[in-house]
Amino acid sequence: MTTMDDVSRPSRVAAADEAISAEELQLAARNHGIPLEALRYDVTPAGLHYLLIHYDIPELDPAAHTLAVDGAVDRPLDLDLAALRERPRVSHKVTLECAGNGRALLHPRPVSQPWLVEAVGNAEWTGTPLAPLLREAGLSPDAVDVVFTGADHGVERGVEQDYQRALPVADALRDEVLLAYEMNGAPLLPQHGAPLRLIVPGWYGMAHVKWLRGVTVTTAPFEGYQNAVAYRLRRDADDPGVPVTRIEPRALVRPPGFPDFMSRTRVLRPGACLLDGRAWSGHAPVDAVEVTVDGGASWAPAELDPPTAGEWAWRRWRYAWTPEPGRYVLGARATDASGRSQPVAQPWNRGGFANNLVQRVEVVVLPE
Amino acid sequence: MTTMDDVSRPSRVAAADEAISAEELQLAARNHGIPLEALRYDVTPAGLHYLLIHYDIPELDPAAHTLAVDGAVDRPLDLDLAALRERPRVSHKVTLECAGNGRALLHPRPVSQPWLVEAVGNAEWTGTPLAPLLREAGLSPDAVDVVFTGADHGVERGVEQDYQRALPVADALRDEVLLAYEMNGAPLLPQHGAPLRLIVPGWYGMAHVKWLRGVTVTTAPFEGYQNAVAYRLRRDADDPGVPVTRIEPRALVRPPGFPDFMSRTRVLRPGACLLDGRAWSGHAPVDAVEVTVDGGASWAPAELDPPTAGEWAWRRWRYAWTPEPGRYVLGARATDASGRSQPVAQPWNRGGFANNLVQRVEVVVLPE
Repeated sequence: MTTMDDVSRPSRVAAADEAISAEELQLAARNHGIPLEALRYDVTPAGLHYLLIHYDIPELDPAAHTLAVDGAVDRPLDLDLAALRERPRVSHKVTLECAGNGRALLHPRPVSQPWLVEAVGNAEWTGTPLAPLLREAGLSPDAVDVVFTGADHGVERGVEQDYQRALPVADALRDEVLLAYEMNGAPLLPQHGAPLRLIVPGWYGMAHVKWLRGVTVTTAPFEGYQNAVAYRLRRDADDPGVPVTRIEPRALVRPPGFPDFMSRTRVLRPGACLLDGRAWSGHAPVDAVEVTVDGGASWAPAELDPPTAGEWAWRRWRYAWTPEPGRYVLGARATDASGRSQPVAQPWNRGGFANNLVQRVEVVVLPE
Repeated sequence: MTTMDDVSRPSRVAAADEAISAEELQLAARNHGIPLEALRYDVTPAGLHYLLIHYDIPELDPAAHTLAVDGAVDRPLDLDLAALRERPRVSHKVTLECAGNGRALLHPRPVSQPWLVEAVGNAEWTGTPLAPLLREAGLSPDAVDVVFTGADHGVERGVEQDYQRALPVADALRDEVLLAYEMNGAPLLPQHGAPLRLIVPGWYGMAHVKWLRGVTVTTAPFEGYQNAVAYRLRRDADDPGVPVTRIEPRALVRPPGFPDFMSRTRVLRPGACLLDGRAWSGHAPVDAVEVTVDGGASWAPAELDPPTAGEWAWRRWRYAWTPEPGRYVLGARATDASGRSQPVAQPWNRGGFANNLVQRVEVVVLPE
């Protein structure tokens, strides 16, 4: 008899020289990164922000949608969108990055959504802060975790589930955590969690639960799949690992010149070229970006634009470059105020999470 | 010395068992299909419509952008967006499909953007008809082709170019051809051609030139790369081939039930299930859709919704299904009023264009 185990297989790591599988390609065709030229925009326009959707985009009626706040609280709440919109309204520009960004560049490659470097975006999210709502509900003094439940349903590595992720209660109560109903000044798009999602500035994307329908306070640690099994940094399948949480620092180069269609190699003509890009970290403000044009052999400091978009948004950097004809490999390296930086050789983990390996942009400068 | 030939290689077909390459994955990470659950929407929301961008999304200032109409005309024109918006305003719902949709399912696989079946979308495009503008400019009686030039620049198979595509003059003068400045009631998004693009209802995506800056009437057939080299149906590299033009009929199934994250296999529980999806053709109205639940061994007619969205938009179809536990392979097959239909085994061509092979949706119905 057919069972769920025939449908949904355990996680695995690709063999040493195993190329991208049909299943990985299928995920790449539906999820997508930011086209790197869109690093030009301070705020990523609709449709260019990265997307990672575990199951299907659910069909929700905004007029009928409600958010239940329950569990270890004195006064459970049930709020519709109108009630949430009547509460204090706050906007934050926030850089979101998928925890699996860079996975397909690892050797060996963990088999999942095969991201290269583009799983990022920076949007303005508007909503109401979560903490006052939890306090109104009367958070138990024994609260440990706050579990966020989405309306998206699927099976993953054999476990049928609604998408659920928990935050430790201290993180859930941070001022910047939002119940967001707008992105870039418009109601959320279906693929970004319409009509309501969580925004946890500084954390990788898995924490920002989309299609949010429940907030449940627990007095014991949450043991659901996405916290206890999926998003952990593990050496191997037997390692219990540690949770994936905040975004490691990363800088990306906006590729200069123009591309070859197939290889995406960049073509430039000699002369002055202002390189630029974006840099971010979820741990602390980025305070330095360095640029390499020789694949990491040497580095030079870039100029950072002022952090006018607030502490959760990426910062633009610039670097004046005047290349001669030849081949170059560009990259950029962010360092944040906590001292974290980016590796040129990537430490490996079994899920392919929290990679921040320096990008490699192949450039050919042709003679005039 | 480094030359363009080192950057940009000839087209090729993958070896018999060659898996997806790093270059194909790179294209798949930036371009994207419609997530198949989004077939539920009559009009595809922003960000869910398929995207195929040959080079980079160019950065254009709508306030400064102009369209030049020149070549074999009596009175060349230069129009800004305000002038175009003052002209008669028309909206059409149009299904766009990439000419390369289905390419990665071919054996052997032409190496390019590795589409599976999702390179489609249906949007409402608003703009002004092209024909009156060409007539105002005074089209030469010797006109043969009309060449449309985009602001996007790159190199492809060794040829540096602005993206350019021509239509035979009779096709360019069809009533339904639009200079579009809005999609789904909003100004075009950057990735869809902002501030101006061509819409050629019924034709594959390569004809709908984005970031449109020039319309040039010629008195000799246009021999540019995208017409003479790229978008042709060829048996092999030496075959001159025939042009890719209108969209072949196709139906897609909206996958029922819920997915496994990795395999995208669908899980259902036994009982009544209303299957549905969309069907379209660029040659003639779709007048029949049949459904298979056994991978094409048998077929049954689906019900078609009325074509209320006009002749260029996809039509919804429905099929009542009550499965027992077991494994199924779903698909749908559209036939249009010209008698064209879809193959179960795909004829091959070297570019991987105009495929309309029947989709295969793997479904497992589990016991209660």
